[in-house]
Amino acid sequence: MVEPPKSQYRQIADLLRERIETGVYQPDDPVPSEPELASELGVSRVTVNKAISLLRTAGLVRVRRGSGTYVRSTPRITRDARYRYANPRAAELEGRALGLSPRAECTEVSKVEASTEVAVALGIDAGDPVVVRHRRLFADDEPTRLADAYLPWDIAEDAGLLEPDGAELLESDAGSGAVYAYLAERGHGPARFDEDVTVRVASDAEARALDLEDGQPVIHITHVARDADDRPVEVALHVMPAHLWRLHYDWSALYDDEYGAESDD
Amino acid sequence: MVEPPKSQYRQIADLLRERIETGVYQPDDPVPSEPELASELGVSRVTVNKAISLLRTAGLVRVRRGSGTYVRSTPRITRDARYRYANPRAAELEGRALGLSPRAECTEVSKVEASTEVAVALGIDAGDPVVVRHRRLFADDEPTRLADAYLPWDIAEDAGLLEPDGAELLESDAGSGAVYAYLAERGHGPARFDEDVTVRVASDAEARALDLEDGQPVIHITHVARDADDRPVEVALHVMPAHLWRLHYDWSALYDDEYGAESDD
Repeated sequence: MVEPPKSQYRQIADLLRERIETGVYQPDDPVPSEPELASELGVSRVTVNKAISLLRTAGLVRVRRGSGTYVRSTPRITRDARYRYANPRAAELEGRALGLSPRAECTEVSKVEASTEVAVALGIDAGDPVVVRHRRLFADDEPTRLADAYLPWDIAEDAGLLEPDGAELLESDAGSGAVYAYLAERGHGPARFDEDVTVRVASDAEARALDLEDGQPVIHITHVARDADDRPVEVALHVMPAHLWRLHYDWSALYDDEYGAESDD
Repeated sequence: MVEPPKSQYRQIADLLRERIETGVYQPDDPVPSEPELASELGVSRVTVNKAISLLRTAGLVRVRRGSGTYVRSTPRITRDARYRYANPRAAELEGRALGLSPRAECTEVSKVEASTEVAVALGIDAGDPVVVRHRRLFADDEPTRLADAYLPWDIAEDAGLLEPDGAELLESDAGSGAVYAYLAERGHGPARFDEDVTVRVASDAEARALDLEDGQPVIHITHVARDADDRPVEVALHVMPAHLWRLHYDWSALYDDEYGAESDD
């Protein structure tokens, strides 16, 4: 296939990307200013500005107001879905594999009325009471994820999550895995997980909380845990800077006869 | 949490988004011009332009050169990973559930040397021969996906994919499911699948092939099929406009003891 010529700003963006990937511009280092780049590369400042915009959206550089443009330093983190929910400490280990220090900030635990989205996922009515836990996760000092977990009120109560020990667990920096282990010991352990993954532009509030540029995409995961009776015991909404993550899923083809049977409709 | 005020262009973007979602602006209809919107909403043209840019990146509108800005009409399509590879016709059914007509364009089948990325995924050496099949998929007239499938040469040969019947299958518009069924009948059926999902900005060529705006994100899926001996029999690279898709994964927590055992390292 013959490629048509690339637009000039794309060529400049590719050249700057290569300089970042080969270490000419090091992580956390400033990128030369737009006038410097325009002069060095013999193109207009408008072209350099468009190229830098593309790199900002792609999560390769960030602008610090009044200071300049810097190379982002956090590498892509792999999130292995099956592994992370089978191991109470797995979420913490995701960043550690890359030498990053994880940190969780629990911003709120409270009783709220379920929104329509949460109610549909939990199989309850909108307005029914749920326990919500809002968290913000970091790798070193970089925010990597917003995680809002919702549990039906009666499940939380039945599992003792509203009593001192459970409440302490929720208010701690423990991940979903620890909460699932707690639920499992009390007869409400997850037997099945569902995830829906979409990509969208970060909202204003998300962009601030996750240190993103205008227009940067986020990955939005709706994670549902169901118990052995197929009842949802938790819904977690994860909002993650798209440039920071690699999602991994794996499954056996051998359990899929139930699906194959539908093929001749 | 008290929300700081939104920037003006975000407010305009949200208002236009609401008009699209509530049908004030209908699918395939033009959005009023920037001067018209600036006048109606009492803001500058620059603000309207920034708001429209955000909606373009988000995949809500598209610009047709010399004609104006139009509401995109294709709804989000759900891709159920386990289902789609368990059923030869599942990929076709993804769009049909929404009343869309699927179409596949097989742009090339050929023998090439494996790139490093493909070689690593297939467990072969870079430069080793592979069979590649490039396809472009549509729902109605909207391009929804680029799919490049790679098979190791000896597996393709052993399964008869290089003989007339197999070659015809590859050159047809049949999906991966049909290829897997063919491989399975000949002793090379997939027993296990792995997927890695990342999000990145579309390249120039991808943006053209997928009818995307500058800077729009794509979902990049590296899908690996392994046979019963854990040997990769196919690697497929999928590039999908992020705004068009919802990825669905589900799994049982009960097969995960193998993972849990690693938790005390």
